[in-house]
Order: sequence, then C-alpha cells, then structure tokens
Amino acid sequence: MTVINQRKTPELKADWEALERIFIRPEEHSRAVLVKYMEQILFGLHDFLRTHVGITRVASLKELSDQYINTDISKNPRKKLEEVIQGIITDIAPHAVNVASPYFIGHMTGAIPFFMVHLATIVTALNQNVVKLETSKVVSIIERQVLAKIHRYIYGFDASFYNKHVQLPESTLGSFVEDGTLANLTALWVARNTLLPPLDGFEGVEKDGMAAAYQAHRIKRCVILVSALGHYSLRKAGGILGIGNKNVIPVDIDEHFRMDLNKLKTMLAALKREPGTAVMAIIGVAGTTETGTIDPLEEIAAICAENRIYFHVDAAWGGPVLLSEKYQGLLKGIKHADSVTIDGHKQFYMPMSCGMVYFKDPQAMDQVAYNAAYVIRPGSVDLGRRSLPGSRAAVSLILGSALDIMGTGGYALLLDHGIETAAKLATEIKHRKLFQLTSPPCLNILTYRLFPENLCQTALNRLNIMLQRQQRENGHSFVSRTTIRKSGQPDMVVLRAVIMNPLTRMGILTEILDEQEAIYHNFKYE
Amino acid sequence: MTVINQRKTPELKADWEALERIFIRPEEHSRAVLVKYMEQILFGLHDFLRTHVGITRVASLKELSDQYINTDISKNPRKKLEEVIQGIITDIAPHAVNVASPYFIGHMTGAIPFFMVHLATIVTALNQNVVKLETSKVVSIIERQVLAKIHRYIYGFDASFYNKHVQLPESTLGSFVEDGTLANLTALWVARNTLLPPLDGFEGVEKDGMAAAYQAHRIKRCVILVSALGHYSLRKAGGILGIGNKNVIPVDIDEHFRMDLNKLKTMLAALKREPGTAVMAIIGVAGTTETGTIDPLEEIAAICAENRIYFHVDAAWGGPVLLSEKYQGLLKGIKHADSVTIDGHKQFYMPMSCGMVYFKDPQAMDQVAYNAAYVIRPGSVDLGRRSLPGSRAAVSLILGSALDIMGTGGYALLLDHGIETAAKLATEIKHRKLFQLTSPPCLNILTYRLFPENLCQTALNRLNIMLQRQQRENGHSFVSRTTIRKSGQPDMVVLRAVIMNPLTRMGILTEILDEQEAIYHNFKYE
Repeated sequence: MTVINQRKTPELKADWEALERIFIRPEEHSRAVLVKYMEQILFGLHDFLRTHVGITRVASLKELSDQYINTDISKNPRKKLEEVIQGIITDIAPHAVNVASPYFIGHMTGAIPFFMVHLATIVTALNQNVVKLETSKVVSIIERQVLAKIHRYIYGFDASFYNKHVQLPESTLGSFVEDGTLANLTALWVARNTLLPPLDGFEGVEKDGMAAAYQAHRIKRCVILVSALGHYSLRKAGGILGIGNKNVIPVDIDEHFRMDLNKLKTMLAALKREPGTAVMAIIGVAGTTETGTIDPLEEIAAICAENRIYFHVDAAWGGPVLLSEKYQGLLKGIKHADSVTIDGHKQFYMPMSCGMVYFKDPQAMDQVAYNAAYVIRPGSVDLGRRSLPGSRAAVSLILGSALDIMGTGGYALLLDHGIETAAKLATEIKHRKLFQLTSPPCLNILTYRLFPENLCQTALNRLNIMLQRQQRENGHSFVSRTTIRKSGQPDMVVLRAVIMNPLTRMGILTEILDEQEAIYHNFKYE
Repeated sequence: MTVINQRKTPELKADWEALERIFIRPEEHSRAVLVKYMEQILFGLHDFLRTHVGITRVASLKELSDQYINTDISKNPRKKLEEVIQGIITDIAPHAVNVASPYFIGHMTGAIPFFMVHLATIVTALNQNVVKLETSKVVSIIERQVLAKIHRYIYGFDASFYNKHVQLPESTLGSFVEDGTLANLTALWVARNTLLPPLDGFEGVEKDGMAAAYQAHRIKRCVILVSALGHYSLRKAGGILGIGNKNVIPVDIDEHFRMDLNKLKTMLAALKREPGTAVMAIIGVAGTTETGTIDPLEEIAAICAENRIYFHVDAAWGGPVLLSEKYQGLLKGIKHADSVTIDGHKQFYMPMSCGMVYFKDPQAMDQVAYNAAYVIRPGSVDLGRRSLPGSRAAVSLILGSALDIMGTGGYALLLDHGIETAAKLATEIKHRKLFQLTSPPCLNILTYRLFPENLCQTALNRLNIMLQRQQRENGHSFVSRTTIRKSGQPDMVVLRAVIMNPLTRMGILTEILDEQEAIYHNFKYE
C-alpha cells in the first residue's frame, strides 16, 4: 500500500509530542485556543449561514465531485484543527445545504435551537456508551426515564404503571435507534417474532428462521398492510426481516390522503380467504412523508383489535404533536398501537439523528433479547440486551434536557406555528391562479403544483420537475418534489412544502411562490 | 393526560419571547454567554473528570434509579440551559462512567482526543442529513471520499480503481451505519441477497421473502460459520434476516483463540453432505471482543474462494491497525474479504457512535437498493439509496478531518502503544504468582484471572466474579470480565483488559494489579 505524503505544512509531524498536544489533557494556555475554536464553530458557521442568503452555493455536482477524488491518507498530519475548522467554514459550508434557512422548506430537516448544539457537545464530551451499564451507569438510568416520559404522552397509562416500569430492568418501554427506518425495523422485528412463537419442535422464528417458522405455523406468507403513502423503510424492513418487501402491501388512500378503510376491510377479507396467508401487522401513518396526513388511527386500531392483528404506528414525523394541547387530538387512537415510531431529529428539533420506538407492552421487546458473555449477561440491566444496535451515544440526554428547557409549551409553540402557517400557505396557493393545491395540510406539510391552463398531465409533470430543479439550482430557496400515485390515476408530480422553521412566515412563503412564478415565466419566454 | 407543572424557577415560561431567545438567531450580547457555556462543557466536565480520580462515584443502582422516576414533562420550561449544563457537571457526570480515565481498561470505549469534540460539534451545527443530496450536497461527496480512503487501506486496489469509483454514483465502496452491529447486519444482508438471487418465477429473497427463496433455490437452511468468539451481533443478524440465529454456527477455536481451521474444514465437509444446506458466509474476526485475537484471514479466504462462499471480516476492533506499518501484517488476508466491518468509535478514536461496512465489489450494495418518490429516486446520487439507515448525521466529516489531523502516523502511535503495552502487561501478569494469563495479547486485549493455588474451577470463577465486582464498586479503576467457553472444557471466568488510552502505561497497570491483589487478600481475611 503506497502512502503518498502530501503534507501541506511541512512542520506537521506525527509524534508523541504532537499527540500529547492534541489528545492528552490540554494545558492552561491551550484552553483559550480550544474555546476560541468552539466560538468559531458556533458563530463562524452561523454568520456564514446568515450572511449567505441562499440555501447552497451554485456549483454543479460534477464540479464538486472533481474536488474530492484524492483517496490517499498521508502519514504525517496534513492540517491542524484550526485549519480544518477554517476549511469547513470557508470551503465546505458554502457547498453544504443551509437547512437552517427559513427559505429551506423542502425536507424534514431544518433549523435546530442553539442549545441543541451545546447538549450534543456534552454527549460527545462524556462519550458514554449506553449499550451497557459499565460504560454509562446513571446515563442508562436517565435514558429509561426519558423513554418513560414520551411513552406516557403516547399511551397515557396511570402513574402507578410508570412508577413500576420506569426503572424496572425487566421492562422495556422503548428504545433509541439511529433513525425512523431502524425504529420501524425494530417494531416489525418484534411483530414478526410475536406472530411466529415457538411450538412443539420449533424454537421460534428468531432461532430457527423464517422457512422453518412458516412450516411450523403452516403459513405460506406473511403480509403487512400500510397506506400507499407509507415510508419506504417499511418495505425495506419487510425485505430485511425475510418477509419479502412485496408482502408489504399498499392500501389505497382516500380523497384525504388517508388509508381508505373500506379498501382495508376488503383487502383483509380477501386475505383471510387466502389459505396460508397471515397478516402480520397493519401500520397507521401519523404524518406521511409526502403529504403529512394522518391515517384514521382509532378506526385502524379497532380493526386490528377485532382481527387480533399487530398495530404499529409510524409517527416519525407527527409523534411530537402529542405535546400540543391544541392539536394532539389529530393523533387520536395512537394509544392503541402495539408500537410507535418517533424521530427526535424531526419535530423534537434534535440534531441528526435520533430514532425512537415505543412499545405498549413493557415485555414486548423480550422477543428480541440477546445476551453475551462479556456484557448484557442474562438478568443484567444493560440496555443493549433488548436493542437493535449495540454501541450507542447517549442521545437521551439531549432529548431529556430539551424537554426541561422547552417544556411541552415550548414545543407546542413550534408545532402549532408549523400547522397554522401551512394552513395559511394553502389559502395563498388557492388564491393564485397559476397553482393548484394538490394535498391540503393536515399537519405542516402540503403539496401543490404549477398548474397553467391547457397542459396535459405529462407536460405538467415535466414542467414541475423543471421548476423544482431550477429553483434548487438558483440556490435562494428550496422546495422539494414528489410523485403522488393513486391507483387508477396517472402519476402526478407535485411540489412539497414542509413548514418546521419558526422563522418561516408568510412573507417568506409568498417570496418563494413569487420566485416559482418568475421561473415559470422565464421558461415561457426562453 | 395530566401534566403537572413542576417548574422550579417560577419565571420560566414557554412563549415566543423565550423561544426567540433560545431558538432563533442569538444577538451579539448572548454570544459571549453561549461561548461561556461551551467553555463550561469543555473544561467543567474535563476538570471534574480529572480531579475526580475514580471511574465513577460509589452509588448503588437502586439509589440512582430512585432519583430518576418522575415521568412528567412540565408545560413550562423547568430549567435554563445554564442550569442543565451545571446539573450535568455536578449531578450526572460523577455518576456516569469516566471512560476517559487511563484506569478504565475494561471496555472498548475510551478517551477521545479533544479535537473530536470540536469536529462532532461542527457536524451538529451544520445538521446535514446525508440520506440525500438535497440535505447535504458536498457533504455526501466528502463521505464518498472518506469511504474510498479507508477502502483503499483495506483492499489496496490501484489508483485507477479509486479514481473511477470514488465519485461514481453507481458505485458504493461502503456505508456508514450506527455501529458494528448494524455494519455486520448490512454485510450479511448483502450476503443473503447475493446467495438467493431471482430465478425463473422467483423475484429474489428481498422481494419474495425467505420461505419462497428456500423453495425456489431448493434449500432447507442457510448457515453462517464464525469462530466461537464471534460477536453476538452476528447471531442477532441471523435472527433479524430470517436465517435463524441457531444457523449462525460457532466454529471451535484453537489454542491461540483463533478459528480452528481443521474444525472449519470438517464442518464444511459435513455441511456439504447435508441435503438442502447452503453455507451463506464464513466470517473471520479481526480482533475478537473478548480476547482481541485475529482469525487466520488468509487461510479462511482461501477456503471461501475454493468453496465459493461469501467471506465477511468483522474488523470492528482491529480494522484501524491497517494504518500501522508495524502491525498491519496481522490483518493479512483481509483484502480478500467480500465485506469488512470497522467501528470508528473504537480504534479510530471517534466519539460514539460510527459503524462502517466496506465492500470489495462496488456493485455489491445494489443487492439492497431502495427507492422512493420524494428522494433517492432511481438513478439518483443520494447515499440513502443503498444504506440500511435512512436519515444519518455526517460523521464522515469527523473521520475525514481526523485523518487529516492525525495522519496514519498519529494513529499508528496510538495503536502501537496499545499493542506494546498489552505485551508488557502480559509479562507482568506472568511474573505475578497470584495471576494466570488466560489469553496472551495478539492486539491490545488480553485476559487473565486471579489464580490462587488449590482452588477448583467453580471456586475460581466465583472468586474472579467477586473480584471484578469489588474493583468496579471501589470506583478507582475498571477491568471487565468475560467467560471463555471452549468446547469440552468447563466455562472459565476471566478478567479482561483493553489498552486503548495512550496514558495507560505500566505504572497504572501495576497499580491496577496491586489493587486486585489487595482486594483478594481482603477477601481472605474477612
């Protein structure tokens, strides 16, 4: 393996002296420097993002890619920390995406409060590993408390329930994972193992595998039903778990972009008649990725109860709305779910990334327990015993502290603002002749499209793709796009707005619509 | 849902004014305050950890648990950021685990260089989401470059290979995941799908599921072979993927704690005779969790090649040793692996947590590609197209910058120090009558036990469990324990030392051994 030495600063050398400087306890005089660097990070980046009005600097992917092709690692250090920080501020940040901008209304990633940066830094500095008590101790205990707090908002059991389970090592109210994809995977992993338990001569699906499980349980296939707007991670989970992603079956949506209950019932009846088919789970979505709509959870719960089917709710986006007194009713029925996915990095405004999954039954995760000789021994209190990942950061410290700093009231301000601003944006879109509102907001997401008269669907789709690209490339503001697929109708390309930044107010939104109109008129005259 | 308002500081209120203060762009005068907080985080914690000589403060789990049982979230804020930070420094840190202490030699979590905290803070402040280009742009490009750099150290293809693939959207050299568990899961997911491709009337295991795959391929079971010292995450992956964790079969180890090649060959021959059994993968471990030993990768690779079996190497621990010119030879043969797991939060000294998986074939991850309408559309360059998780933090920025700051030379200093100090510790243990070296170090991990004369195995096991607990409870130093299981031999409880902190030198190690002897003598006289 040839290592080409490319050091720019010839004096940088990898030796113990350098290592002491950068690794080992810094002396008094270097403290001021380290704090100065932190200031640079906090405000150098911040000021850049503020003065740089746009979302990202214009540069083609090709141009950027060409700058990052060197694959050598030099033997001696190439840069000091100072140069790295400066380089990120001047060379990288301008070509990253300013997701903190109020003009960035395209995705579920946005501005985070300043204190989140401090809290995340604490987590890094402590560097606890919550897989086991021996590398986290009180932090594992705090994680249990934070999980119980959110669990209580979802399920609302009485105080005695939480007093009993919050610190009981045998109970698991939920689990932190990397993101919603892995939260959904964890939930369906539990659902699968619950459906296919041990029988005489069969040790359960986790131990014996899917083929043996089907044979033992006389099943030919398992299916999972979810609205056609369900997140792609649900199909992925079906693939990973050996169920087959084509057995994650989309249920048509109604005119409000919610799961069509009649279609669900018809489908269930047909599946029941199919010999050897087991319905493993029905999934309700609370805040679909594309339209932000919420499935009729209460009604789906009733259908699941009646048919004894596992009920999972993917509330990755909408879950935190439970903290808003004004809008928590939108999630009515969520407390009946066997499991619930919520993303902390979405509407809990945490930094990337923090997925969570909650279980109604504190014993549900026993289905996926694992032990090892050196840690998480049987009977241990290590959180890694019932968890998809192993080593994990203590992100619960961030969420727990954020709840203290914000209160439910603080979160409600943010959530209500998003929901109410999206409603105003919908009204504005309806007033503009050039646009069509394609899905009204239920939460803080809506879709619409440029809709000039006398264009066929194909031309409209092409136009909206061009428009979204052009706006993205202009770099001033960002709206995303998606394709709405309803059975029996042609695909419809739409623009998608997600309102989660408290600075995104109507003034900015009308600017964004104006820009889109201007881009369209430019197209026409080109 | 009753929310009991528990605010300690009566003036804290959740309103827009408060929100502006904590969320929205801070004014000049609050900048100094935010920087002061950061200083507190950097050095308040640091000083506490330094002056507090021990690993953790003495407090029973019960005592601690009793303090964290309140599961209410108050409506109004309960604490200011300042109070949260102070509370973590004074109340939480003392009861967390000081993994940064050179006296903490028990687990694979340890001290990290100061600059890592700065780098992680940058990642938080930028809050990019690398699932898609639209929320990361240049940061996705940088991730590809960092992956290529490490890939090159593993596989060492020529420059033209890397020039071609580093930024080619159709190629995937590797993937960042939360940790080694998910890296191993990703690798075996790819291996499973590679083994069970589409056939006439069968669309592949990912689409149709495991039962259909077995039927189409006329298989009754798949097995995965790994040394008896393989990480438990491999069994977990077998469970998740529908293979069944009992089909992840342990191969006996030889006297050097490496996979016994004769046993492997015998096992393979027997499996070949078994109708309907397919060997999905053989896994070599490069740095077992319990003894740090490295399987004979070159020989396993040859056996895999001969039998056309997928070869995965779990180098979560040992992978970075490739950067040490002196010891990279220990990993000889790793370049033949179809996939390799490496953990960044282990011997790349990154903060929690950063798993990585690398693939020899840049097209291997096509086996697990997913698309969605609103992102990662077919043909897109979004990294989320071929990735187990969805939303992810840009941890590649940390690793990439760390490589620039440390150089391979800097990492080699750390790695060589660990390996050489472990060898010295082994010598010291051999010189002490009261101890027995139970597994000599191959890398920087060894096991030993208290071994007074005339005790049977059961009594020895009990004694070593008591010793480890007592030392942990004393709180001055920490050594972990595990159980070595060799077939045909009784279980042996051993103490386990992991040397990864550059400040852990022989003086400290002899102190730790002295303390263990003192604890033992205390036992005797009690």
